[in-house]
Amino acid sequence: MIKFYYAAHTCALASHIALEEAGAEYSTVRISFKADEQRSPAYLAINPKGRVPAMATDRGILTETPAMLAYIAQSFPAARLAPLDDPFAFAEVQAFNSYLCSTVHVAHAHRMRGYRWTDDPAAIEALKRKVPETVYAAFELIETGMLKGPWVMGARYTVADPYLFTLAQWLEADGVDPARLPRVAEHRRRMADRPAVQRAIAAELGSIEPANAATR
Amino acid sequence: MIKFYYAAHTCALASHIALEEAGAEYSTVRISFKADEQRSPAYLAINPKGRVPAMATDRGILTETPAMLAYIAQSFPAARLAPLDDPFAFAEVQAFNSYLCSTVHVAHAHRMRGYRWTDDPAAIEALKRKVPETVYAAFELIETGMLKGPWVMGARYTVADPYLFTLAQWLEADGVDPARLPRVAEHRRRMADRPAVQRAIAAELGSIEPANAATR
Repeated sequence: MIKFYYAAHTCALASHIALEEAGAEYSTVRISFKADEQRSPAYLAINPKGRVPAMATDRGILTETPAMLAYIAQSFPAARLAPLDDPFAFAEVQAFNSYLCSTVHVAHAHRMRGYRWTDDPAAIEALKRKVPETVYAAFELIETGMLKGPWVMGARYTVADPYLFTLAQWLEADGVDPARLPRVAEHRRRMADRPAVQRAIAAELGSIEPANAATR
Repeated sequence: MIKFYYAAHTCALASHIALEEAGAEYSTVRISFKADEQRSPAYLAINPKGRVPAMATDRGILTETPAMLAYIAQSFPAARLAPLDDPFAFAEVQAFNSYLCSTVHVAHAHRMRGYRWTDDPAAIEALKRKVPETVYAAFELIETGMLKGPWVMGARYTVADPYLFTLAQWLEADGVDPARLPRVAEHRRRMADRPAVQRAIAAELGSIEPANAATR
Protein backbone atom coordinates (compact mmCIF):
# COMPACT_ATOMS: atom_id res chain seq x y z
CA MET A 1 0.00 0.00 0.00
CA ILE A 2 1.12 3.55 -0.72
CA LYS A 3 2.40 5.67 2.15
CA PHE A 4 2.16 9.35 1.27
CA TYR A 5 4.44 11.90 2.98
CA TYR A 6 3.20 15.47 2.86
CA ALA A 7 3.32 18.80 4.65
CA ALA A 8 0.29 21.05 4.84
CA HIS A 9 0.15 24.11 2.52
CA THR A 10 2.72 22.65 0.11
CA CYS A 11 2.66 21.30 -3.43
CA ALA A 12 2.09 17.85 -1.91
CA LEU A 13 -1.63 18.65 -2.05
CA ALA A 14 -1.61 18.01 -5.82
CA SER A 15 -0.59 14.37 -5.43
CA HIS A 16 -2.85 13.99 -2.39
CA ILE A 17 -5.85 15.07 -4.47
CA ALA A 18 -4.76 12.76 -7.31
CA LEU A 19 -4.63 9.80 -4.89
CA GLU A 20 -8.19 10.62 -3.82
CA GLU A 21 -9.36 11.00 -7.42
CA ALA A 22 -7.76 7.64 -8.24
CA GLY A 23 -9.54 5.86 -5.40
CA ALA A 24 -6.15 4.66 -4.20
CA GLU A 25 -5.68 2.90 -0.89
CA TYR A 26 -3.00 4.81 0.97
CA SER A 27 -1.95 6.06 4.35
CA THR A 28 -0.51 9.49 5.08
CA VAL A 29 2.40 10.74 7.15
CA ARG A 30 2.39 14.43 8.00
CA ILE A 31 5.81 16.10 8.03
CA SER A 32 6.03 19.25 10.14
CA PHE A 33 7.99 22.03 8.44
CA LYS A 34 7.72 24.06 11.66
CA ALA A 35 9.62 21.32 13.50
CA ASP A 36 12.04 21.03 10.51
CA GLU A 37 11.08 17.38 10.25
CA GLN A 38 11.88 17.37 6.51
CA ARG A 39 15.56 17.62 7.46
CA SER A 40 15.43 14.97 10.20
CA PRO A 41 17.61 11.88 9.67
CA ALA A 42 14.47 9.71 9.62
CA TYR A 43 12.92 11.70 6.77
CA LEU A 44 16.19 12.19 4.88
CA ALA A 45 16.44 8.39 4.78
CA ILE A 46 13.15 8.45 2.84
CA ASN A 47 13.89 11.51 0.71
CA PRO A 48 17.51 12.75 0.79
CA LYS A 49 16.33 15.97 -0.87
CA GLY A 50 14.56 16.97 2.36
CA ARG A 51 11.43 17.97 0.46
CA VAL A 52 7.83 16.88 0.22
CA PRO A 53 5.98 15.11 -1.23
CA ALA A 54 7.35 11.58 -1.19
CA MET A 55 5.54 8.33 -1.75
CA ALA A 56 6.61 4.95 -0.44
CA THR A 57 5.40 2.12 -2.67
CA ASP A 58 5.98 -1.64 -2.60
CA ARG A 59 8.76 -1.03 -5.16
CA GLY A 60 10.44 1.87 -3.40
CA ILE A 61 10.25 5.63 -2.89
CA LEU A 62 9.05 8.11 -5.47
CA THR A 63 9.48 11.90 -5.32
CA GLU A 64 8.81 14.94 -7.54
CA THR A 65 5.22 16.00 -8.15
CA PRO A 66 5.11 15.62 -11.97
CA ALA A 67 6.52 12.09 -11.72
CA MET A 68 4.11 11.13 -8.92
CA LEU A 69 1.11 12.54 -10.79
CA ALA A 70 1.95 10.55 -13.92
CA TYR A 71 2.57 7.46 -11.77
CA ILE A 72 -0.82 7.77 -10.08
CA ALA A 73 -2.53 8.21 -13.46
CA GLN A 74 -0.74 5.14 -14.89
CA SER A 75 -1.25 2.99 -11.79
CA PHE A 76 -4.99 3.64 -11.61
CA PRO A 77 -6.00 3.71 -15.29
CA ALA A 78 -9.69 3.24 -14.50
CA ALA A 79 -9.74 6.70 -12.95
CA ARG A 80 -8.81 8.17 -16.37
CA LEU A 81 -6.56 10.87 -14.92
CA ALA A 82 -4.39 11.20 -18.04
CA PRO A 83 -4.62 10.27 -21.74
CA LEU A 84 -2.47 7.18 -21.29
CA ASP A 85 -2.84 5.77 -24.81
CA ASP A 86 -1.91 8.97 -26.63
CA PRO A 87 1.76 10.01 -26.31
CA PHE A 88 1.13 13.52 -27.66
CA ALA A 89 -1.83 14.26 -25.36
CA PHE A 90 0.07 12.72 -22.44
CA ALA A 91 3.04 14.96 -23.26
CA GLU A 92 0.76 18.01 -23.18
CA VAL A 93 -0.26 17.09 -19.61
CA GLN A 94 3.37 16.54 -18.72
CA ALA A 95 4.51 19.81 -20.31
CA PHE A 96 1.96 21.70 -18.25
CA ASN A 97 3.06 19.98 -15.04
CA SER A 98 6.72 20.54 -15.87
CA TYR A 99 6.04 24.26 -16.37
CA LEU A 100 4.34 24.36 -12.96
CA CYS A 101 7.29 22.74 -11.18
CA SER A 102 10.16 24.47 -12.96
CA THR A 103 8.73 27.97 -13.54
CA VAL A 104 5.58 28.68 -11.50
CA HIS A 105 6.61 26.97 -8.26
CA VAL A 106 10.14 28.36 -8.61
CA ALA A 107 8.82 31.93 -9.03
CA HIS A 108 6.73 31.45 -5.87
CA ALA A 109 9.63 29.95 -3.91
CA HIS A 110 11.58 33.19 -4.18
CA ARG A 111 9.23 34.75 -1.62
CA MET A 112 9.79 32.34 1.28
CA ARG A 113 12.90 30.41 0.26
CA GLY A 114 15.29 32.92 -1.23
CA TYR A 115 17.94 31.51 1.11
CA ARG A 116 18.24 28.58 -1.28
CA TRP A 117 19.94 30.85 -3.82
CA THR A 118 21.67 33.52 -1.73
CA ASP A 119 22.96 34.09 1.79
CA ASP A 120 22.71 37.89 1.50
CA PRO A 121 19.77 39.25 3.55
CA ALA A 122 19.38 42.28 1.25
CA ALA A 123 19.27 40.04 -1.80
CA ILE A 124 16.67 37.80 -0.12
CA GLU A 125 14.52 40.90 0.38
CA ALA A 126 15.10 41.92 -3.24
CA LEU A 127 13.90 38.50 -4.40
CA LYS A 128 10.69 38.87 -2.37
CA ARG A 129 9.90 42.19 -4.03
CA LYS A 130 9.69 40.78 -7.55
CA VAL A 131 7.51 37.77 -6.66
CA PRO A 132 4.15 39.47 -7.41
CA GLU A 133 5.42 40.32 -10.89
CA THR A 134 7.04 36.96 -11.70
CA VAL A 135 4.19 34.86 -10.32
CA TYR A 136 1.64 36.95 -12.22
CA ALA A 137 3.66 36.65 -15.44
CA ALA A 138 3.88 32.87 -15.00
CA PHE A 139 0.13 32.58 -14.40
CA GLU A 140 -0.71 34.98 -17.24
CA LEU A 141 0.57 32.41 -19.75
CA ILE A 142 -1.75 29.86 -18.12
CA GLU A 143 -4.68 32.30 -18.13
CA THR A 144 -4.31 33.33 -21.75
CA GLY A 145 -3.30 30.06 -23.36
CA MET A 146 -2.38 26.91 -21.51
CA LEU A 147 -5.63 26.56 -19.54
CA LYS A 148 -8.01 25.33 -22.24
CA GLY A 149 -11.06 25.22 -19.99
CA PRO A 150 -13.09 24.10 -18.27
CA TRP A 151 -10.21 21.84 -17.21
CA VAL A 152 -6.58 22.47 -18.01
CA MET A 153 -6.59 20.07 -20.95
CA GLY A 154 -10.10 20.97 -22.09
CA ALA A 155 -13.15 18.77 -21.63
CA ARG A 156 -11.25 16.09 -19.76
CA TYR A 157 -10.06 16.32 -16.16
CA THR A 158 -6.42 15.20 -15.72
CA VAL A 159 -3.67 15.27 -13.10
CA ALA A 160 -2.78 18.74 -14.42
CA ASP A 161 -5.89 20.07 -12.65
CA PRO A 162 -5.04 19.32 -9.01
CA TYR A 163 -1.53 20.67 -9.63
CA LEU A 164 -2.79 23.98 -11.02
CA PHE A 165 -5.34 24.21 -8.20
CA THR A 166 -2.60 23.66 -5.61
CA LEU A 167 -0.27 26.38 -6.91
CA ALA A 168 -3.17 28.79 -7.47
CA GLN A 169 -3.80 28.63 -3.70
CA TRP A 170 -0.70 30.75 -3.23
CA LEU A 171 -1.63 33.69 -5.46
CA GLU A 172 -2.93 36.01 -2.74
CA ALA A 173 0.05 35.44 -0.44
CA ASP A 174 2.34 36.02 -3.42
CA GLY A 175 0.74 39.43 -3.93
CA VAL A 176 -1.31 38.56 -7.02
CA ASP A 177 -5.01 39.43 -7.10
CA PRO A 178 -6.83 36.37 -8.53
CA ALA A 179 -9.34 38.78 -10.08
CA ARG A 180 -6.60 39.54 -12.65
CA LEU A 181 -6.71 35.85 -13.62
CA PRO A 182 -10.45 35.17 -14.00
CA ARG A 183 -10.12 31.83 -15.80
CA VAL A 184 -7.63 30.52 -13.23
CA ALA A 185 -9.96 31.72 -10.45
CA GLU A 186 -12.93 29.98 -12.07
CA HIS A 187 -10.87 26.78 -12.34
CA ARG A 188 -10.05 27.07 -8.63
CA ARG A 189 -13.76 27.37 -7.77
CA ARG A 190 -14.65 24.42 -9.98
CA MET A 191 -11.94 22.30 -8.36
CA ALA A 192 -13.18 23.18 -4.87
CA ASP A 193 -16.52 21.54 -5.73
CA ARG A 194 -14.95 18.13 -6.27
CA PRO A 195 -15.33 15.69 -3.37
CA ALA A 196 -11.79 14.35 -3.86
CA VAL A 197 -10.38 17.85 -3.45
CA GLN A 198 -12.48 18.44 -0.36
CA ARG A 199 -11.37 15.14 1.19
CA ALA A 200 -7.66 15.78 0.58
CA ILE A 201 -7.77 19.33 1.95
CA ALA A 202 -9.78 18.29 5.00
CA ALA A 203 -7.39 15.44 5.74
CA GLU A 204 -4.36 17.75 5.59
CA LEU A 205 -5.86 20.54 7.65
CA GLY A 206 -7.63 18.18 10.04
CA SER A 207 -4.39 16.42 10.92
CA ILE A 208 -2.92 19.57 12.45
CA GLU A 209 -5.29 19.44 15.43
CA PRO A 210 -4.96 16.30 17.54
CA ALA A 211 -8.68 16.46 18.34
CA ASN A 212 -9.46 15.86 14.66
CA ALA A 213 -6.65 13.46 13.88
CA ALA A 214 -8.76 10.42 14.73
CA THR A 215 -11.13 11.17 11.87
CA ARG A 216 -8.47 10.19 9.34
CA MET B 1 7.79 15.10 -39.33
CA ILE B 2 9.18 16.66 -36.16
CA LYS B 3 10.67 20.14 -36.33
CA PHE B 4 12.99 20.71 -33.40
CA TYR B 5 13.75 24.25 -32.16
CA TYR B 6 16.93 24.61 -30.14
CA ALA B 7 19.65 27.04 -29.16
CA ALA B 8 23.25 25.95 -28.79
CA HIS B 9 24.63 25.43 -25.27
CA THR B 10 21.15 25.05 -23.73
CA CYS B 11 19.17 22.21 -22.20
CA ALA B 12 17.71 21.59 -25.68
CA LEU B 13 20.70 19.31 -26.27
CA ALA B 14 19.05 16.63 -24.10
CA SER B 15 16.06 16.27 -26.42
CA HIS B 16 18.29 16.61 -29.47
CA ILE B 17 20.35 13.63 -28.31
CA ALA B 18 17.17 11.69 -27.54
CA LEU B 19 15.88 12.31 -31.07
CA GLU B 20 19.16 10.94 -32.42
CA GLU B 21 19.04 7.93 -30.09
CA ALA B 22 15.45 7.28 -31.21
CA GLY B 23 16.37 7.29 -34.87
CA ALA B 24 13.68 9.92 -35.41
CA GLU B 25 13.25 11.78 -38.67
CA TYR B 26 13.34 15.45 -37.82
CA SER B 27 14.56 18.81 -38.97
CA THR B 28 16.13 21.47 -36.78
CA VAL B 29 15.68 25.21 -36.42
CA ARG B 30 18.43 27.07 -34.60
CA ILE B 31 17.26 29.95 -32.43
CA SER B 32 19.89 32.60 -31.76
CA PHE B 33 19.90 33.78 -28.14
CA LYS B 34 22.46 36.44 -29.12
CA ALA B 35 19.95 37.92 -31.55
CA ASP B 36 17.19 37.48 -28.91
CA GLU B 37 15.29 35.37 -31.43
CA GLN B 38 13.55 33.48 -28.63
CA ARG B 39 11.57 36.65 -27.95
CA SER B 40 10.78 37.40 -31.60
CA PRO B 41 7.07 37.43 -32.55
CA ALA B 42 7.70 34.52 -34.92
CA TYR B 43 9.15 32.33 -32.18
CA LEU B 44 6.68 33.45 -29.51
CA ALA B 45 3.93 32.21 -31.83
CA ILE B 46 5.55 28.77 -31.53
CA ASN B 47 6.42 28.96 -27.82
CA PRO B 48 4.86 31.87 -25.91
CA LYS B 49 7.27 31.15 -23.05
CA GLY B 50 10.17 32.41 -25.18
CA ARG B 51 12.32 29.45 -24.23
CA VAL B 52 13.92 26.49 -25.94
CA PRO B 53 13.50 23.66 -26.72
CA ALA B 54 10.24 23.35 -28.58
CA MET B 55 9.10 20.64 -30.92
CA ALA B 56 6.53 21.02 -33.66
CA THR B 57 4.75 17.75 -34.39
CA ASP B 58 1.87 16.87 -36.72
CA ARG B 59 -0.41 17.24 -33.68
CA GLY B 60 0.96 20.55 -32.40
CA ILE B 61 3.75 22.09 -30.37
CA LEU B 62 5.41 20.48 -27.37
CA THR B 63 7.70 22.20 -24.86
CA GLU B 64 9.47 21.37 -21.56
CA THR B 65 12.37 18.95 -21.61
CA PRO B 66 10.97 16.25 -19.28
CA ALA B 67 7.74 16.11 -21.30
CA MET B 68 9.61 16.00 -24.60
CA LEU B 69 11.96 13.26 -23.39
CA ALA B 70 9.06 11.06 -22.28
CA TYR B 71 7.28 11.80 -25.56
CA ILE B 72 10.30 10.75 -27.62
CA ALA B 73 10.64 7.55 -25.58
CA GLN B 74 6.93 6.73 -26.01
CA SER B 75 6.83 7.66 -29.70
CA PHE B 76 9.81 5.50 -30.62
CA PRO B 77 9.37 2.44 -28.38
CA ALA B 78 11.76 0.33 -30.44
CA ALA B 79 14.63 2.53 -29.24
CA ARG B 80 13.89 1.43 -25.66
CA LEU B 81 14.66 4.85 -24.14
CA ALA B 82 12.42 4.37 -21.08
CA PRO B 83 10.75 1.46 -19.24
CA LEU B 84 7.38 2.10 -20.87
CA ASP B 85 5.56 -0.93 -19.49
CA ASP B 86 6.49 -0.38 -15.85
CA PRO B 87 4.84 2.66 -14.21
CA PHE B 88 7.18 2.61 -11.20
CA ALA B 89 10.38 2.39 -13.25
CA PHE B 90 9.02 5.02 -15.65
CA ALA B 91 8.26 7.27 -12.66
CA GLU B 92 11.85 6.88 -11.46
CA VAL B 93 13.08 8.19 -14.82
CA GLN B 94 10.57 11.02 -14.64
CA ALA B 95 11.47 11.89 -11.03
CA PHE B 96 15.11 12.19 -12.03
CA ASN B 97 14.26 14.42 -14.99
CA SER B 98 11.92 16.53 -12.86
CA TYR B 99 14.70 17.06 -10.32
CA LEU B 100 17.00 18.19 -13.14
CA CYS B 101 14.52 20.75 -14.46
CA SER B 102 13.18 22.12 -11.16
CA THR B 103 16.30 22.03 -8.96
CA VAL B 104 19.54 21.49 -10.91
CA HIS B 105 18.75 23.70 -13.92
CA VAL B 106 17.21 26.34 -11.62
CA ALA B 107 20.33 26.43 -9.43
CA HIS B 108 22.43 26.93 -12.58
CA ALA B 109 20.11 29.63 -13.97
CA HIS B 110 20.89 31.91 -11.05
CA ARG B 111 24.34 32.56 -12.54
CA MET B 112 23.28 33.97 -15.91
CA ARG B 113 19.58 34.70 -15.48
CA GLY B 114 19.18 36.22 -12.04
CA TYR B 115 17.21 39.03 -13.72
CA ARG B 116 14.30 36.61 -13.89
CA TRP B 117 13.84 36.91 -10.13
CA THR B 118 15.14 40.37 -9.23
CA ASP B 119 15.80 43.75 -10.87
CA ASP B 120 18.42 44.73 -8.28
CA PRO B 121 21.97 44.58 -9.74
CA ALA B 122 23.50 43.90 -6.30
CA ALA B 123 21.09 41.02 -5.72
CA ILE B 124 21.87 39.60 -9.16
CA GLU B 125 25.56 39.59 -8.17
CA ALA B 126 24.68 37.96 -4.84
CA LEU B 127 22.82 35.19 -6.67
CA LYS B 128 25.87 34.51 -8.85
CA ARG B 129 28.09 34.07 -5.81
CA LYS B 130 26.16 31.13 -4.37
CA VAL B 131 25.89 29.19 -7.67
CA PRO B 132 29.03 27.04 -7.14
CA GLU B 133 27.62 25.93 -3.77
CA THR B 134 24.03 25.28 -4.89
CA VAL B 135 24.98 23.55 -8.13
CA TYR B 136 27.48 21.34 -6.28
CA ALA B 137 24.88 20.47 -3.63
CA ALA B 138 22.35 19.56 -6.32
CA PHE B 139 24.87 17.34 -8.13
CA GLU B 140 26.12 15.78 -4.90
CA LEU B 141 22.73 14.06 -4.46
CA ILE B 142 23.10 12.69 -7.97
CA GLU B 143 26.70 11.60 -7.34
CA THR B 144 25.96 9.84 -4.05
CA GLY B 145 22.60 8.30 -4.77
CA MET B 146 20.46 8.99 -7.79
CA LEU B 147 23.03 7.99 -10.42
CA LYS B 148 22.94 4.20 -10.17
CA GLY B 149 25.63 3.58 -12.76
CA PRO B 150 26.80 2.97 -15.31
CA TRP B 151 23.68 4.77 -16.59
CA VAL B 152 21.42 6.93 -14.45
CA MET B 153 18.88 4.13 -14.01
CA GLY B 154 21.47 1.36 -13.78
CA ALA B 155 22.18 -1.14 -16.53
CA ARG B 156 19.72 0.38 -18.94
CA TYR B 157 20.23 3.62 -20.87
CA THR B 158 17.21 5.93 -20.72
CA VAL B 159 16.25 9.52 -21.57
CA ALA B 160 17.55 10.48 -18.12
CA ASP B 161 21.08 10.04 -19.46
CA PRO B 162 21.19 12.72 -22.17
CA TYR B 163 19.54 15.14 -19.74
CA LEU B 164 22.15 14.55 -17.02
CA PHE B 165 24.92 14.77 -19.63
CA THR B 166 23.56 18.11 -20.87
CA LEU B 167 23.39 19.78 -17.46
CA ALA B 168 26.76 18.32 -16.43
CA GLN B 169 28.31 20.31 -19.32
CA TRP B 170 27.78 23.45 -17.26
CA LEU B 171 29.66 22.41 -14.11
CA GLU B 172 32.95 24.14 -14.87
CA ALA B 173 31.33 27.45 -15.86
CA ASP B 174 29.23 27.22 -12.70
CA GLY B 175 32.40 27.02 -10.63
CA VAL B 176 32.20 23.33 -9.75
CA ASP B 177 35.23 21.12 -10.34
CA PRO B 178 33.96 17.89 -11.94
CA ALA B 179 36.74 16.04 -10.11
CA ARG B 180 34.60 16.45 -6.98
CA LEU B 181 31.89 14.44 -8.76
CA PRO B 182 33.81 11.46 -10.18
CA ARG B 183 30.77 9.33 -11.00
CA VAL B 184 29.05 12.19 -12.80
CA ALA B 185 32.33 12.88 -14.66
CA GLU B 186 32.61 9.22 -15.67
CA HIS B 187 29.01 9.29 -16.91
CA ARG B 188 29.85 12.36 -18.98
CA ARG B 189 32.82 10.57 -20.57
CA ARG B 190 30.73 7.46 -21.27
CA MET B 191 28.02 9.59 -22.90
CA ALA B 192 30.57 11.36 -25.10
CA ASP B 193 31.43 7.99 -26.68
CA ARG B 194 27.92 7.48 -28.03
CA PRO B 195 27.47 8.25 -31.73
CA ALA B 196 24.05 9.81 -31.12
CA VAL B 197 25.59 12.26 -28.65
CA GLN B 198 28.38 13.09 -31.07
CA ARG B 199 25.92 13.68 -33.93
CA ALA B 200 23.67 15.98 -31.88
CA ILE B 201 26.57 18.07 -30.56
CA ALA B 202 28.20 18.33 -33.96
CA ALA B 203 24.92 19.41 -35.55
CA GLU B 204 24.39 22.16 -32.96
CA LEU B 205 27.93 23.49 -33.04
CA GLY B 206 28.30 23.03 -36.78
CA SER B 207 25.25 25.15 -37.47
CA ILE B 208 26.88 28.24 -35.97
CA GLU B 209 29.36 28.52 -38.82
CA PRO B 210 27.75 29.09 -42.22
CA ALA B 211 30.59 27.15 -43.86
CA ASN B 212 29.45 24.00 -42.04
CA ALA B 213 25.72 24.57 -42.22
CA ALA B 214 25.41 22.74 -45.50
CA THR B 215 26.52 19.46 -43.91
CA ARG B 216 23.25 19.26 -41.96
